[in-house]
Amino acid sequence: IMATTTLKGQPFDRPVLDSMLRRRMFYTPSFEVYGGVAGLYDYGPPGCALQTNVVDLFRKHFVLEEDMLEVDCTALTPAEVLKTSGHVDKFADWMCKDPKNGDIMRADHFVEEILESRLKGDKEARGVKVEEKEDDPKKKKKKVKATEAVKLDDAVVQEYEEILARIDNYNGEELGQLIKKYEMKNPATGVEPLPPVEFNLMFNTPIGPSGNLAGYLRPETAQGQFLNFAKLLDFNQQQMPFASACIGKSYRNEISPRSGLLRVREFLMAEIEHYVDPHGGKKHHRFEEVKDVELVLLNRHTQLAGQTHVKKVAIGKAVADGTVDNETLGYFLARIHLFLEKIGIDQTKLRFRQHMANEMAHYAADCWDAELQTSYGWIECVGCADRSAYDLTVHAKKTGAPLVVRERLAEPITVEEWQIDLDKKKFGPHFKKDGKTVEAAVEALPQEKREALAQDLKLEGKITIDVEGVGNGKVEISKDLIVIERRKRVENTREFTPNVIEPSFGIGRIIYCLMEHTYWTRGSDGGDEARGVLSFPPIVAPSKVLLVPLSTHESFKPLLRHMSLKLRSLGVSSRVDDSSASIGKRYSRNDELGTPLGITIDFQSVQDKTYTLRDRDSTKQVRADEETILTAIKSLVEGEKVWADIEKELPTFEGQEVEVPVR
Amino acid sequence: IMATTTLKGQPFDRPVLDSMLRRRMFYTPSFEVYGGVAGLYDYGPPGCALQTNVVDLFRKHFVLEEDMLEVDCTALTPAEVLKTSGHVDKFADWMCKDPKNGDIMRADHFVEEILESRLKGDKEARGVKVEEKEDDPKKKKKKVKATEAVKLDDAVVQEYEEILARIDNYNGEELGQLIKKYEMKNPATGVEPLPPVEFNLMFNTPIGPSGNLAGYLRPETAQGQFLNFAKLLDFNQQQMPFASACIGKSYRNEISPRSGLLRVREFLMAEIEHYVDPHGGKKHHRFEEVKDVELVLLNRHTQLAGQTHVKKVAIGKAVADGTVDNETLGYFLARIHLFLEKIGIDQTKLRFRQHMANEMAHYAADCWDAELQTSYGWIECVGCADRSAYDLTVHAKKTGAPLVVRERLAEPITVEEWQIDLDKKKFGPHFKKDGKTVEAAVEALPQEKREALAQDLKLEGKITIDVEGVGNGKVEISKDLIVIERRKRVENTREFTPNVIEPSFGIGRIIYCLMEHTYWTRGSDGGDEARGVLSFPPIVAPSKVLLVPLSTHESFKPLLRHMSLKLRSLGVSSRVDDSSASIGKRYSRNDELGTPLGITIDFQSVQDKTYTLRDRDSTKQVRADEETILTAIKSLVEGEKVWADIEKELPTFEGQEVEVPVR
Repeated sequence: IMATTTLKGQPFDRPVLDSMLRRRMFYTPSFEVYGGVAGLYDYGPPGCALQTNVVDLFRKHFVLEEDMLEVDCTALTPAEVLKTSGHVDKFADWMCKDPKNGDIMRADHFVEEILESRLKGDKEARGVKVEEKEDDPKKKKKKVKATEAVKLDDAVVQEYEEILARIDNYNGEELGQLIKKYEMKNPATGVEPLPPVEFNLMFNTPIGPSGNLAGYLRPETAQGQFLNFAKLLDFNQQQMPFASACIGKSYRNEISPRSGLLRVREFLMAEIEHYVDPHGGKKHHRFEEVKDVELVLLNRHTQLAGQTHVKKVAIGKAVADGTVDNETLGYFLARIHLFLEKIGIDQTKLRFRQHMANEMAHYAADCWDAELQTSYGWIECVGCADRSAYDLTVHAKKTGAPLVVRERLAEPITVEEWQIDLDKKKFGPHFKKDGKTVEAAVEALPQEKREALAQDLKLEGKITIDVEGVGNGKVEISKDLIVIERRKRVENTREFTPNVIEPSFGIGRIIYCLMEHTYWTRGSDGGDEARGVLSFPPIVAPSKVLLVPLSTHESFKPLLRHMSLKLRSLGVSSRVDDSSASIGKRYSRNDELGTPLGITIDFQSVQDKTYTLRDRDSTKQVRADEETILTAIKSLVEGEKVWADIEKELPTFEGQEVEVPVR
Repeated sequence: IMATTTLKGQPFDRPVLDSMLRRRMFYTPSFEVYGGVAGLYDYGPPGCALQTNVVDLFRKHFVLEEDMLEVDCTALTPAEVLKTSGHVDKFADWMCKDPKNGDIMRADHFVEEILESRLKGDKEARGVKVEEKEDDPKKKKKKVKATEAVKLDDAVVQEYEEILARIDNYNGEELGQLIKKYEMKNPATGVEPLPPVEFNLMFNTPIGPSGNLAGYLRPETAQGQFLNFAKLLDFNQQQMPFASACIGKSYRNEISPRSGLLRVREFLMAEIEHYVDPHGGKKHHRFEEVKDVELVLLNRHTQLAGQTHVKKVAIGKAVADGTVDNETLGYFLARIHLFLEKIGIDQTKLRFRQHMANEMAHYAADCWDAELQTSYGWIECVGCADRSAYDLTVHAKKTGAPLVVRERLAEPITVEEWQIDLDKKKFGPHFKKDGKTVEAAVEALPQEKREALAQDLKLEGKITIDVEGVGNGKVEISKDLIVIERRKRVENTREFTPNVIEPSFGIGRIIYCLMEHTYWTRGSDGGDEARGVLSFPPIVAPSKVLLVPLSTHESFKPLLRHMSLKLRSLGVSSRVDDSSASIGKRYSRNDELGTPLGITIDFQSVQDKTYTLRDRDSTKQVRADEETILTAIKSLVEGEKVWADIEKELPTFEGQEVEVPVR
């Protein structure tokens, strides 16, 4: 658990924030009245609005800005597709089962928890004060049970610490060996779990009434986009480069979900697949616009050296010196940075971490994660990978679909190559039912092989090739059936499989981190420690303006309706709180909801149509006539001005509102 | 198949529209390179944008306008929840299997197809010309095979027609009897299918690694909302009435999906659950605002009489005369009407059909479907049901959660009732381990029973009550342990389970109908029959403005960039088509995409910064300077003006564009 601070530098207390987020219904465990299901959460009204606003901004910042082709693909996916993509075989975690009570645990989590608990026991035995800062009541209970104050050898402590540092790098067999070697027992039963087995993380569900079509819920939106590549290229009038995008739910059947909103079984993703010609260095025509954007980078070499220090560097420089593989990848890293900045992510809690070679898929050219710092540690929220031509290639190979770009060459080029002619009239009758198979094998012969065979044909008057499934697998073809010659051919088009740069956003994770990053309490201003604030930027805030009448007096009602309509016509979302609670209490509630502005309607408003406008962060107020207030709101919500500007322009008001420390 | 017309009254040709929608990638079969999966479709860029705009409008028209509490609930749902709601037992269709080839068919569809085919054969035998207007190639093939020109008795023809008219009302047993009675055989094999069996339409998928937690993909979003009722009421500060809303994917494992986008296995729903006090006639405080909205109603009585004539009636009148059950239901019917009108649904192809008593769930008070007329017939696109207190009641009963409203009474009321006191000191020792169970049974005794027991106690000095699981199920309690007396009690709060009015939107269906309703071809103006147009209102059109440079000349590029940025800053989405196709061809493409406006950039634009603005529907153009053109666009897109206004204000232009009949 990482010690973090609030937006105002106060010690961060996760249970307090968590209880506030639930109380204000940013989120809530799904099906709670039925006891809930681990890893499933619903967003309540403010969480849902926050999500809608972040998605809306994603569309503006990425999709509209770059004319991306947004698609909406189904989550239901036939198994064959995910077999080809590798998910059926490889998208798995290691789990182990307790033979006594049937508990199923993620193997790496099990090892981690046991070793952490032993290290803690060791510290206790050595009399070192251990800070107890655990918020999950279930987990706490387990830990308490497991922790015994037993002193360990110094060497053992070091071994444990080394294992924990590398916990993400063990496979199932290795985890099994660790469990055996260090005699790890499930605290609940006192017995050692069975050896780890692989568990595929996809939810499976057969499609159709026969149950014969195996299907899964997609673990990512990418595959649906790849399968539409040819149609999208066509839609884009064959112009390259271009990108598709998809925003939708994905599913992972986590073994034992923990970390609240950060590891869930159903989550919203926004993924971009940018298709680029692999030749010419993967340049990007708008790279110039972002080259001076400074990113905090944690590169591969630093990590290899066992270190975590970061460098703040302009993306132009990082691409130029090879830290980041290419311009297109660099362009998207910068655009991701700008997006996260826009929605209110704390820039001091953002870094881009490069994947180590052993973390990346074998085909990936380079990969960086935008990681956000939270009380759970550094959390991967956006991945940005250069997936090379892998996905399109495997799907094309499996289905025979031409997932390629054909580009007319400016200058035709002449290719010299080994060509094969078959005497079809004799060939068919000679091989009878195997004709087609042998012919396909001949057509598939690579250039270097053809050269050798031409030699064979010349010397021996026949060739022998491998043809699986025909006779003993070797087929002889004599020179009366085949000609192999080196010839010239003019090519007018170039055919290539584009490479894919994939920025992939976990919207739910970003939203959770945003809530941690914008949270603080009035205690930092010397106010009430118990009064929480979420300082969302107006652009993503669930609601922009709170309308508060001084009391439930009838005379305020027409003004409330009037201002609601005015704000709606400006495209500014607002809410009315005309409950009987004190004004301070009502504003407190809305500070917790992250509403940036408040309009108070009092008796003076009824007389002269002036209103006070309150700033959430400073709790300062100004007062002016309707038109002026509305103009100020619009400029604040659209990001043209900040509160300091408004305070300079309009007279301060210190009137009816008493910010009483109540909740 | 219903004969319909295009927006301009031309005969509607579905295969032509369908081919255009696929060519322009409004939608595309999912996983087509893998052969596709029946009932799964992806939206391509224009379909996806259309969907986003319709959802956005849904949020503005319903959620924001009425301060609804939007939630985002998971699609994964534990089986227990759907068992309680009735879906596990009742959400099923009848299917029958061909014993020879294993074909699985929906029983009602099978009966329908066989009888339709026989009627067609009869017509052929009688020499009546049968119009062949079938677009699904697979279906066509089957039908051709099945159709034989055999004349039927007049009485048989009438029987068949009556069966077809009532096809939706048969249960599985009845369908089985029809198959037997009329000797219906699967044309593919010539054998009679096995008797119909029920097939549950929910996709099931176990949750978690043990596979012990049975789960389904939700068939509707409603249940997630109901389970959050108590939290939402709390969020709404205990104020009634209020509504929640949820927009998300739902899933139905259709047996044999047909009708293209209208019957799919994964679809987007938008559902509202409006909670209202069942007392006081379910009034709505904004009903006054909509009472004059005229709806086309097909009521229950008309349908019972076997007729389909409709009445156009103001909703105020329909509620007053009892046609529509209550104001709240009527309010939402009117709001649904206004929403469909706003997005561009043809008002002559919209009706509200009331459910017959046998169509409604037993608990429903009233239910109306907004049906849209298409080439597939009248399609249910929005349901609007008064579900009474059913859902909250069953979930509360199952879980014990208090899904109720507690309202402070303005005037406390005095209740006289039979109260029971137990002598706890004696009671416990007397019943020992059964004490709690017996006590609970006593507490649960209803008032009328208590009265009788008080009498018993008085006469016999003891009572006997049923207590399941204790002794032989009968328990005796003597008068030294219990007192039963009629007493007065003052009540300060009233507790009730709210009723639910549920407007439920099938967004995909609405979008498909919208495409049929807005489609026409230039043939109607005497132009090219092959040039299709989709006349979407600007508010939902996938893109609002097409920017067309006269040619690929370099001098146009800065103006293109400039105008793109200008439009973006106005919040108007635009696309550039700078391909080398002719202007006419480029506009044709965008007519098919439903882009309402076009800006042409020509050499004069380079000189004097004037542009032509083109109207999709009339193909008329006006010319003016940049500022004037942008103002015109904004007023058109925001619905403040229509093209006729612009044509009056600005000079017509008949210049560079030649609307050549090419595609």
